[in-house]
Amino acid sequence: MLDETTNGVFTIAATPFLPDGALDFDSIDRMIDAYVEKGANGLTILGMMGEAGKLSAAESVSVVRRVTSRCTVPVIVGVSAAGFSAMTALSNEAMDAGAMGVMVAPPMGLRTDAQIISYFHNTADALGSIPFVLQDFPLATGVQISASVALKIVEDCPTCVMLKHEDWPGLEKITELRKASDAGSRRISILCGNGGMYLLEEMLRGADGAMTGFGYPEMMRQVLTAFLAGDIERARDIFDAYMPMIRYEAQPGMGLAIRKYSLAQQGVIAHPTLRKPGAGLSALARAEIDVLAARQRQRLSELGL
Amino acid sequence: MLDETTNGVFTIAATPFLPDGALDFDSIDRMIDAYVEKGANGLTILGMMGEAGKLSAAESVSVVRRVTSRCTVPVIVGVSAAGFSAMTALSNEAMDAGAMGVMVAPPMGLRTDAQIISYFHNTADALGSIPFVLQDFPLATGVQISASVALKIVEDCPTCVMLKHEDWPGLEKITELRKASDAGSRRISILCGNGGMYLLEEMLRGADGAMTGFGYPEMMRQVLTAFLAGDIERARDIFDAYMPMIRYEAQPGMGLAIRKYSLAQQGVIAHPTLRKPGAGLSALARAEIDVLAARQRQRLSELGL
Amino acid sequence: MLDETTNGVFTIAATPFLPDGALDFDSIDRMIDAYVEKGANGLTILGMMGEAGKLSAAESVSVVRRVTSRCTVPVIVGVSAAGFSAMTALSNEAMDAGAMGVMVAPPMGLRTDAQIISYFHNTADALGSIPFVLQDFPLATGVQISASVALKIVEDCPTCVMLKHEDWPGLEKITELRKASDAGSRRISILCGNGGMYLLEEMLRGADGAMTGFGYPEMMRQVLTAFLAGDIERARDIFDAYMPMIRYEAQPGMGLAIRKYSLAQQGVIAHPTLRKPGAGLSALARAEIDVLAARQRQRLSELGL
Amino acid sequence: MLDETTNGVFTIAATPFLPDGALDFDSIDRMIDAYVEKGANGLTILGMMGEAGKLSAAESVSVVRRVTSRCTVPVIVGVSAAGFSAMTALSNEAMDAGAMGVMVAPPMGLRTDAQIISYFHNTADALGSIPFVLQDFPLATGVQISASVALKIVEDCPTCVMLKHEDWPGLEKITELRKASDAGSRRISILCGNGGMYLLEEMLRGADGAMTGFGYPEMMRQVLTAFLAGDIERARDIFDAYMPMIRYEAQPGMGLAIRKYSLAQQGVIAHPTLRKPGAGLSALARAEIDVLAARQRQRLSELGL
Repeated sequence: MLDETTNGVFTIAATPFLPDGALDFDSIDRMIDAYVEKGANGLTILGMMGEAGKLSAAESVSVVRRVTSRCTVPVIVGVSAAGFSAMTALSNEAMDAGAMGVMVAPPMGLRTDAQIISYFHNTADALGSIPFVLQDFPLATGVQISASVALKIVEDCPTCVMLKHEDWPGLEKITELRKASDAGSRRISILCGNGGMYLLEEMLRGADGAMTGFGYPEMMRQVLTAFLAGDIERARDIFDAYMPMIRYEAQPGMGLAIRKYSLAQQGVIAHPTLRKPGAGLSALARAEIDVLAARQRQRLSELGL
Repeated sequence: MLDETTNGVFTIAATPFLPDGALDFDSIDRMIDAYVEKGANGLTILGMMGEAGKLSAAESVSVVRRVTSRCTVPVIVGVSAAGFSAMTALSNEAMDAGAMGVMVAPPMGLRTDAQIISYFHNTADALGSIPFVLQDFPLATGVQISASVALKIVEDCPTCVMLKHEDWPGLEKITELRKASDAGSRRISILCGNGGMYLLEEMLRGADGAMTGFGYPEMMRQVLTAFLAGDIERARDIFDAYMPMIRYEAQPGMGLAIRKYSLAQQGVIAHPTLRKPGAGLSALARAEIDVLAARQRQRLSELGL
Repeated sequence: MLDETTNGVFTIAATPFLPDGALDFDSIDRMIDAYVEKGANGLTILGMMGEAGKLSAAESVSVVRRVTSRCTVPVIVGVSAAGFSAMTALSNEAMDAGAMGVMVAPPMGLRTDAQIISYFHNTADALGSIPFVLQDFPLATGVQISASVALKIVEDCPTCVMLKHEDWPGLEKITELRKASDAGSRRISILCGNGGMYLLEEMLRGADGAMTGFGYPEMMRQVLTAFLAGDIERARDIFDAYMPMIRYEAQPGMGLAIRKYSLAQQGVIAHPTLRKPGAGLSALARAEIDVLAARQRQRLSELGL
Repeated sequence: MLDETTNGVFTIAATPFLPDGALDFDSIDRMIDAYVEKGANGLTILGMMGEAGKLSAAESVSVVRRVTSRCTVPVIVGVSAAGFSAMTALSNEAMDAGAMGVMVAPPMGLRTDAQIISYFHNTADALGSIPFVLQDFPLATGVQISASVALKIVEDCPTCVMLKHEDWPGLEKITELRKASDAGSRRISILCGNGGMYLLEEMLRGADGAMTGFGYPEMMRQVLTAFLAGDIERARDIFDAYMPMIRYEAQPGMGLAIRKYSLAQQGVIAHPTLRKPGAGLSALARAEIDVLAARQRQRLSELGL
């Protein structure tokens, strides 16, 4: 079960589609196996990067079941929804299927501290005993959660056991949260997103790992392995080798298309298809990625990877 | 079937709940009957005011079926969704259940003209032959659709047959659209929302009726009847009698709670309950509404209503 | 000097321009006289409705001096600016010219409670001993100030002596603030804006008056006079007589053009000109206003006004 | 004079302050000399990164005069303002002082294509014969300018001669604009911002140079020199060496503090002070920068730089 000690690499899984937009269950299987092989300690599915909003309720359930039945590592399911009925329905399906917990992002439109706190009180009520991840992603949701608000939610809601951290800038927030737990507040797990763009600094500030969906998911594993072994310089060398690609993926609204292209190039999924209204990549963009990937391979081989 | 000639009063229906948050089907029945009795030419269900986002997919279908099986006037179903799979699934259920058409608001986040046009191209593709209402409600969606963009959508998408007009300010937009159709573009139906706050001016500018959810839905019928009979002064007198209440309902985020309170006070629904995270009304607010309602009755009785 | 006891009608003054966009100082004089004659207890200049952002720094100073040298009632000067240097420079000019205080709206972009509080700490520091009005106008600024944040600013900043209240909905906020001052927090003045749309309810909730810029500024005086005399029914009758016009002015982005048109029709200013990029009114809109004005005169005459 | 052929490296200049917040004119002098020595073909002052909004009108003029009197390369002056009076006043001062042109970002709040086009029509009218840079920076302004809108402005406004490109993602926009000019539309200069994060891809897509304010401004010069010499691999090697720092600077709202810290560490300016309400850096952040700077020096030395 998801709890405050959960850590490591939770890879955000894409949702593979066939060229006609139908779910590609064969690619789901292959992708899960690849993520685990590349070092995932867990998977997070049906997040924003999983195109969750584009699935019907029935499709979401079918994806959850396929993944949990195949996957040998724990699974967290994104259940953000406009209302608590839909959220609760999917959460119950997910837990019944064997998920370790769920993830909730606040809906667009929340503004004041009190509104945000109230929303997560209601969320915790609606989810009952199900442990959940608070997803803090202002660039996508428009909701800005200060450290003091996050701490209040942690204080009030025992089932909030993890922060998916992708505020930007967000390094000081990690430090604030860790200072607070050092001073006695409940210490929850912090896994970091944002495509890994600040992963090394985040770990140094006190994060417990990564939860993101970079197109070369072994990056998180390799960086964390060096970091946890205490070889920070090597962790930086590896991190820097991936940096040009991390940066390229960071283009808002294009990241998922870039990742799916990279995954398809590596044979992890069969097609780079995004569901409408998702944007595809131009030939120029694909060529830019190819150059970056070739240089990345070269630098990694210099590092013995 | 919904088409460009559809007109009159389409009442936006609330979704009644029991005090514990469950759907209140008995109140749905009573409410439908009341709306029709108060002069609705049609109903629109599962709009924003119908708390559509708070229903699970299964609940949405059950509401659609209950309403269409009972209702003696045509029904339009709001099917706005984060993705086309959910939109299509609900649209097909609605049409199968006997709806006359569906209504689609653009998702938050669309910004440029090209993005908006592209979204409705995709919508029309996804809906196939189902006729749809374009809901233009920038205060809620953040999406600003200029008249030229609306006209482009009308030009490109033959199944877009009605505009739910609630841009604010929006009077000049009606005039622009009517000038364009006078000059040869396809003339679609324009029904106006915004709680009726500009209903009289909107009719004078060329609207075909109202589609909104005021707590005293007979207002739209009474104003339109006088207006269509050519008695503009009487239409204004009636309109002005309701104006203090229309204005009170116009408080953003509170309108639905006010309407449900008014409907419950009139016995149209059993409970004023909003689903979480909906806000209830304070005792002071309820008292304010009571005063406005009493003065409204007085002024209407002076008008013989 | 502006303080916590300041109350009554503070009319938000327009800034009159000649048809070529130059400042119209003759109209400034006439307008000031008219506002006072129509019952203003004070004026507020260079607010958003005063097109303050469209004036150069030198023009702002010239307007301040012209108004303060002529005006027989106290003057508050809007000094909101992107930075504290510009704010301080204008504030000092205003106080030197005899203003009673200044008004500050938060800049767009503030989001969390902590950011808002910090901004007003800095504001109070920058203004030194100058008393200021906190302008709370989320529809224009995008900044949502909860009651608890307002109370914190009041607690921390002794020079914050008045709230210009135009949150929407905002009635509960007045009640919350008054409950807090009843319980011992410093009671500041609350004057209400939003074109007067909820003036009567606001007074009943505990406001101290109006600060807004309706095109018939005698409305605020007449409503307050009846209200303060305890004749609430007459206050409502007067309020309702103006309601259709209040509502028409409430169209966002058009309010100032409507007010300037009304003021010019009444001979208060010479020209309805807005500076670019301000929008003018169409012939249809002017005709709509004329009809509303005629009916308004009729209803007021029935009330002996 | 600024025109469509202007190209190369235009460094966005910081505005140095003393610890008490006063302008630091000695540092202005030193900084200008350093920028030119590090390879700037021109400077851009009073941009967003120049804390322009925090200067009073008089201070802005004094900065313009100091820079233009000292600087041996052309100067562009940011003149974005809430109104055209302030914009025109500063533009005239700038041109009188010897600036080569001005830069204008659209005000927050513009939404539809028509609103944006109209704003720049008015801008061009207000500026008369002064050539201007259109600053396209949606992350800061919230205004999304599609390629077709940019092209319409270029078509309608002959004095719009340069695009400061910092849309994000923005690579396809460069390609679209270049395709349009290849097809006959007027070709304007495109200089790229965003801290240089996509500089190499931008040059390959057809940009004419960089206009940004990275803390090691020689980066732009070094990358462009290699690029223009046709040695793309060396350009990439240099670019990648700076990438971890570019990424660190990309933290929104912190970039300027990071740059000023880096400039102060290099002795380019005396103090890293930001004017209130600017945020300073924590000790942890400064240490993170120091580590990145040391590794950057090492990698550059391996490249013979």
